[in-house]
Amino acid sequence: MSIYTTPVLNINLKKLTENYNLLKNLCAPAIPAAVIKDDAYGLGAIKVAEALYAVGCRHFFVAHGIEGMRIRPSVPEAEIFVLQGIGEESYPCFKTARLTPVICSQEMLTFWEQHKIEGIRPAIQVETGLNRLGFSIAELGKLSQETLDSFSYVLSHLACADEQAHFMNNRQLNNFKIIKTRFFPNTPATLSASDGVFLGHDFHFDMTRLGAAMYGINTAPYRENQMQNILELKAPVLQIKNLGKGEFVGYSATFRAPIDMRTAIVSIGYGDGLPRSLSNRGKVIFYENGKPHFCQILGRVSMDNVICDITSLTNVKVGDFGYFINDDYTVDDVARDAGMIAYELISNLGKNQRFIKSYIK
Amino acid sequence: MSIYTTPVLNINLKKLTENYNLLKNLCAPAIPAAVIKDDAYGLGAIKVAEALYAVGCRHFFVAHGIEGMRIRPSVPEAEIFVLQGIGEESYPCFKTARLTPVICSQEMLTFWEQHKIEGIRPAIQVETGLNRLGFSIAELGKLSQETLDSFSYVLSHLACADEQAHFMNNRQLNNFKIIKTRFFPNTPATLSASDGVFLGHDFHFDMTRLGAAMYGINTAPYRENQMQNILELKAPVLQIKNLGKGEFVGYSATFRAPIDMRTAIVSIGYGDGLPRSLSNRGKVIFYENGKPHFCQILGRVSMDNVICDITSLTNVKVGDFGYFINDDYTVDDVARDAGMIAYELISNLGKNQRFIKSYIK
Repeated sequence: MSIYTTPVLNINLKKLTENYNLLKNLCAPAIPAAVIKDDAYGLGAIKVAEALYAVGCRHFFVAHGIEGMRIRPSVPEAEIFVLQGIGEESYPCFKTARLTPVICSQEMLTFWEQHKIEGIRPAIQVETGLNRLGFSIAELGKLSQETLDSFSYVLSHLACADEQAHFMNNRQLNNFKIIKTRFFPNTPATLSASDGVFLGHDFHFDMTRLGAAMYGINTAPYRENQMQNILELKAPVLQIKNLGKGEFVGYSATFRAPIDMRTAIVSIGYGDGLPRSLSNRGKVIFYENGKPHFCQILGRVSMDNVICDITSLTNVKVGDFGYFINDDYTVDDVARDAGMIAYELISNLGKNQRFIKSYIK
Repeated sequence: MSIYTTPVLNINLKKLTENYNLLKNLCAPAIPAAVIKDDAYGLGAIKVAEALYAVGCRHFFVAHGIEGMRIRPSVPEAEIFVLQGIGEESYPCFKTARLTPVICSQEMLTFWEQHKIEGIRPAIQVETGLNRLGFSIAELGKLSQETLDSFSYVLSHLACADEQAHFMNNRQLNNFKIIKTRFFPNTPATLSASDGVFLGHDFHFDMTRLGAAMYGINTAPYRENQMQNILELKAPVLQIKNLGKGEFVGYSATFRAPIDMRTAIVSIGYGDGLPRSLSNRGKVIFYENGKPHFCQILGRVSMDNVICDITSLTNVKVGDFGYFINDDYTVDDVARDAGMIAYELISNLGKNQRFIKSYIK
């Protein structure tokens, strides 16, 4: 018997690039840019950027200047767009790492005009219905032709592209076309993220911004996921216990054993980014004879441990690994059980420093 | 007008050590150990360890060997206990950094006996009702007197100490006393974390393990928080918009403006650890004439942005900062609005690398 204590996170970069290539083919001939903001949704922006650069990706999106600066050495010849734009504190990042700001407001445009960086043509974000960042038609109407012509890309973002039939999709598409025709007839355009890719060629324009689907998330949940899962999260069993009928489990004693049971205490918790909302709802998978057994989480998920029901299993022992994310229980499955979305799940998961973390190439 | 794009997290180590000292006085003469596992609940274990070491703390608890190894240079003369215990992969950390494992199972004890580290006396965890890690009475009965005497501390953990009147508190206290009397009459003992400190001296034994309360969380929510808030989280306004009656906001169009409104788009999102469950529920504070205004979050929190209602405010402008956690809206308040606990909130928040993060000493 072996004794382990540390959770393990494996990130499959080969499958990630295969997902990227599938999306790229779906939206060709649009340029397939990769969205690696938020440290590549928590999974490690530098590693992800290197893998995508190696398969030919030359356009990247991050949220913040500091994120762009961190990946620049990994993607020397790429264009790096910064979605939150440029400001006083992030300006040095843009200058040093040759980043392209996405200008979202008149105030930011004024700042840019006072702090232009030679050789950089910014993109502009326009409002089409998300009511988040971007210039309204009224604001665009106040810009000079020279200013309008100075942008390298016109960008907007869809609000409801994960619902194929949502009325907002065509409303935003029409608004985007109106803005493009009136203000940016000759400027390359980008509207869609991963979810928009599945809405068809009308939504692709000159560049798509591939993020969530690349990481294996189903961004078109109205049909089966075409993406491969890229994550494996597992943790070792620290102890196996008999739990007598009537005994309580975990914080606030939220689970009471209705019969005599056997439990496994597994070395992972919300301190590793496993959602605490999986308390009494999530599952841990153990394999017997190659078959997955979905063992119910009992009681509250604590910071470092999860307790699960292995009453029906005979072979689980201390040192075995329970699985929390894999091909049998994907990020979308876990997120559903946790009452959240997979984007937030992986964003909170990957950044933790106490995993044994490996990248599969 | 200034333009900024980056969220800011300030961590007040002075107030943290004041909280520590208050807890220390409450549980004196018990040794006040500090719990800095999970990267000090996400806030930065090295910085927190240094601050506590400077005010005399010489006993620390972490969850994993790797966490102990990271803080060892900051606390050279301290004892570092590792709650998840020791295993094959973490053994080198224990040896290099002179860490003290908390042995939780017979299997781990066997491993320890085969891999003893000279000069280290492990602690032992015993089961008193949480049904998480620890030896049962039956398992303890099989240990030799020599083995029982070899432990430096006997440790257990309370399940419901944040509810003063919960029946589990006295049940666990009695179980702990029975175990101590029968197996560990001369071994120093530790039962309580922050929440147990407030249950009175019966629960303090020889050492307490101060964690959540030190970070400002109210671990005795049946009365007003005696701890100081130690966090300030703020983010800049990127854009201000007029939102027409009937317009939608954010992903999935979950908010529809019932009247003409004004909104601020603020540069922070769940990618920074701000819970997405604050969608349509959380608040952003803006100050006018020193008075806090709690502005409702409209629509979904996205990965990088939050949209809030500033219709009733006249002075908010691009570049101003909205506040997400501070003395007026503490981690417990935010966690309540997000439907979670403050422990998980700060654990997910602090680890993000795109904050401008400062430690106030």
